[in-house]
Amino acid sequence: MARYSIGVDFGTLSGRAVLVDTVDGAELAQAVYDYPHGVMERRLPGGAELGLDWALQHPKDYLDVLAHTIPAVIKETGINPADVAGIGTDFTACTILPVKADGTPLCFLPGFENVPHAYIKLWKHHAAQDKANKLNEIAQERGEEWLKRYGGKISSEWAFPKIWQTLDEAPEVYAAADYFIEAADWIIWQLTGVQSRNSCTAGYKAIWHKREGYPSKPFFAALDPRLENLAEDKLNWPVMPLGAKAGGICAAAAALTGLKEGTAVAVGNVDAHVTVPALSIDSPGKVLAIMGTSTCHILLGEEEHVVPGMCGVVEDGVYPGFYGYEAGQSCVGDHFAWFADNCVPASYHDEAAARGISVHELLTEKAARQKPGQSGLVALDWWNGNRSVLVDVDLTGMMLGMTLQTKPEDMYRALVEATAYGTRKIINTFQENGVAVNEFYASGGISHKNPMIMQIYADVLNMPVRIGGSDNGPALGSAIFGAVAAGVFDDIFIAARVMGKLKDTVYLPDPENAGIYEKLYAEYEILHDYFGRGANDVMKRVRALRE
Amino acid sequence: MARYSIGVDFGTLSGRAVLVDTVDGAELAQAVYDYPHGVMERRLPGGAELGLDWALQHPKDYLDVLAHTIPAVIKETGINPADVAGIGTDFTACTILPVKADGTPLCFLPGFENVPHAYIKLWKHHAAQDKANKLNEIAQERGEEWLKRYGGKISSEWAFPKIWQTLDEAPEVYAAADYFIEAADWIIWQLTGVQSRNSCTAGYKAIWHKREGYPSKPFFAALDPRLENLAEDKLNWPVMPLGAKAGGICAAAAALTGLKEGTAVAVGNVDAHVTVPALSIDSPGKVLAIMGTSTCHILLGEEEHVVPGMCGVVEDGVYPGFYGYEAGQSCVGDHFAWFADNCVPASYHDEAAARGISVHELLTEKAARQKPGQSGLVALDWWNGNRSVLVDVDLTGMMLGMTLQTKPEDMYRALVEATAYGTRKIINTFQENGVAVNEFYASGGISHKNPMIMQIYADVLNMPVRIGGSDNGPALGSAIFGAVAAGVFDDIFIAARVMGKLKDTVYLPDPENAGIYEKLYAEYEILHDYFGRGANDVMKRVRALRE
Repeated sequence: MARYSIGVDFGTLSGRAVLVDTVDGAELAQAVYDYPHGVMERRLPGGAELGLDWALQHPKDYLDVLAHTIPAVIKETGINPADVAGIGTDFTACTILPVKADGTPLCFLPGFENVPHAYIKLWKHHAAQDKANKLNEIAQERGEEWLKRYGGKISSEWAFPKIWQTLDEAPEVYAAADYFIEAADWIIWQLTGVQSRNSCTAGYKAIWHKREGYPSKPFFAALDPRLENLAEDKLNWPVMPLGAKAGGICAAAAALTGLKEGTAVAVGNVDAHVTVPALSIDSPGKVLAIMGTSTCHILLGEEEHVVPGMCGVVEDGVYPGFYGYEAGQSCVGDHFAWFADNCVPASYHDEAAARGISVHELLTEKAARQKPGQSGLVALDWWNGNRSVLVDVDLTGMMLGMTLQTKPEDMYRALVEATAYGTRKIINTFQENGVAVNEFYASGGISHKNPMIMQIYADVLNMPVRIGGSDNGPALGSAIFGAVAAGVFDDIFIAARVMGKLKDTVYLPDPENAGIYEKLYAEYEILHDYFGRGANDVMKRVRALRE
Repeated sequence: MARYSIGVDFGTLSGRAVLVDTVDGAELAQAVYDYPHGVMERRLPGGAELGLDWALQHPKDYLDVLAHTIPAVIKETGINPADVAGIGTDFTACTILPVKADGTPLCFLPGFENVPHAYIKLWKHHAAQDKANKLNEIAQERGEEWLKRYGGKISSEWAFPKIWQTLDEAPEVYAAADYFIEAADWIIWQLTGVQSRNSCTAGYKAIWHKREGYPSKPFFAALDPRLENLAEDKLNWPVMPLGAKAGGICAAAAALTGLKEGTAVAVGNVDAHVTVPALSIDSPGKVLAIMGTSTCHILLGEEEHVVPGMCGVVEDGVYPGFYGYEAGQSCVGDHFAWFADNCVPASYHDEAAARGISVHELLTEKAARQKPGQSGLVALDWWNGNRSVLVDVDLTGMMLGMTLQTKPEDMYRALVEATAYGTRKIINTFQENGVAVNEFYASGGISHKNPMIMQIYADVLNMPVRIGGSDNGPALGSAIFGAVAAGVFDDIFIAARVMGKLKDTVYLPDPENAGIYEKLYAEYEILHDYFGRGANDVMKRVRALRE
């Protein structure tokens, strides 16, 4: 039987393929391809100007990723394409495009090449905020039950605000679109020749529920009468659980990639969620934090609970048969980068340069010498608002405890600690609402690069912290789903155990440190609730004064 | 009649003399002399080691200032010493020393040269904090009425904690001392040959009251039975109002300084308080802020009111016939210096260096382009605790409103604004407690150097801000008091009008800016009370965790 699997991770600026041995998860080759069009924020290639907060992509770029990276990993390993059992993919989301009934993107059609709404709206397209606001208002007024599953708020990044913006600003595009489809699903259509929809993007980004389906017609009609039949007209397609096989590589995709026709293709997936099996996570109770500029938390549960402030809970949304919970912190690596860019004195830059290390490394080295609590600082990790558990983009940063003796490394460490407190708040909220959490797993750049940060997380959470073994977590996760789709494994749970990887290092909480952080976290909670839950809305009032 | 007056300002590291024309206050010459021993913090010249938080000075240095600077200004102007009508001086306080009955400092005597407690305890000698704590505890238990006049707390910097420390740690020094005397008064003794005491240091630093005198014997006995007779044994001397003549230049002082014997000498004074006439302030309602690393506020009142959180209220403490109110902010220039040292990125340092300006100038230039409220930041000015109105050294800094777009100049401006809010809080507290404030005067380096800061003060206070016309405010003020002591003027009020100076520039509040600051100040007040008055003592709890 074919023993290899390929995973392709479509990021914001590039796509990355890995070729993996299904026997042990060994990553035998990888290849990266930068999107020629990158993120289009100012104008289309044809010249059409884009508005403020727009962010588009070009579907051709995704096909180019397939055409370049898959042949590259096959070539590098020298394997026979027939030995590739399956392929899995993952994408940013909600990254959505209008297509014709045969899957052709509207922007490929004559007359639409220079029409912005005919292109792919990238996850970080933020020009539909007013639509999101109206949608939330209407959903609240109507008492839509599903709102609770999404922390009480639908993001402007998600499907319906984006589709509604298209209808409103370019009704001809809306009319010409036979479907709106996530890029995650569109790429599978290109690989297999047949349309499919995955439970992850449908559930987290398009308010789909396994038993209730999409929101009701009256709800859509309340948004805009022209949207009444949106779900049945332009989204309607069976939603498949993750790990399912979407189809086999079609002739066109075989020609494009060099893969053998019929090679199993897994249903689409999302970059964060797909990472879960890459860390061998096979059961509930294990939070995975994908730590980058922001952090996304994924957790399996056996029951559906309403957990305040979560990004979403979706049945089959991560693994089939489980409820997948998603939470998030909107500013993690971004906090540290902001600090390094704006608050580090020249002498530190000079010292780092002289020693050939980065400013982050220098700050980390200095901060690592401190004991918890030594700086006397406490911060709230809200420089980019609060995603979970307050779901409030208007909240801002706060730090206290500074004296004339406070040093840059004190503040740097306080920001790290603040993100750890924010993570603990999320975990506690899960626990308080009936969703068990016993272990903490971390993936992403920070988890690999910065042992000090991970030790602080272990101490603050008072939980062992385990780190993903791959530098290509999402691509490895995709390859694991590809292997499951191919039938190499009976299910994703077995596949995760065999192909997933953890580093040998486990960060164990230091009891003394954990005791101090217990006290500091109590302070964080008081401040979190004071500034975040209405006792003092100063952050919103001074923010309003800015305009 | 002799038309010149000399003022000598004894600072922390040096003494400065100015020779002034009493006709118009013109400063004709100045001279500075650095103390050879500076601040002794580690050991005495004889080798004796000093403890943590000690800060001593050497009385010989003060005599050297007289010997160098007075001849220098006489020589530079070429005037006849007989044309010097009077001399005034001012000092840091409480800066106190033990002396024999003839004024000889104990440290000048054989056997005491290497005894730390025989030297001058400088204002910033902080090793008597435990004594101050006990003193406050006992005063509170006994319900001492005078405590209210000092914001409910006696500082470790003041006279009795320092004297008590001497008794406790060096009883032989205490026994050998015929008097404890402020350096401000000791220097007058050296100039005139006779002892005198001034109402400013007695009132603000030694709990003296014009009608009630010093604290009672039972109070002193409660501190330590050996202190029972402290006031009558070692402080007892008539306290004279400011502006009075302490005596004439004695033969020894004439030899030392080149002044004519008999030249009028004003009673001693304190550097902040002496500055009031240098700005022509001649009546109540005008707050003078001496803005340096910290800010001291001086205000005249017609009645004695208990104003919460003031440093003190003393009858005749600034001008005879008025109640002198003192308040303070413990961290003003220090805030900005801390920020420039710790929080300004390399790119700003490079830009400032390339343009040949200081980092402060660059930050000011960038911050000055902003409108009030534009940054969305609010800070509490407590990086070095809060002196007025909370009188709490354990409070620490706080800033909120930061986002990923926040720039260094935003935070710099927020710190400036925070100190302006702190000043407004002090002024409001005066007003709410029956002490009128109608105008704001500023003196000290910041007031001369930074128009942006002064405009922010005008806008936050919603009051015109006037700036002292001299770069040597305290020395000019001393010269004015010298002229009054000499009888050149009938009283200090006339002298202040004639010899005091203001810059032509008046910073007038911008109504639109003042309106925005009204809202921001309301936010400051909420946070001030929340963190400062016990609703959330997080600052104290995390501070306690540091140890």
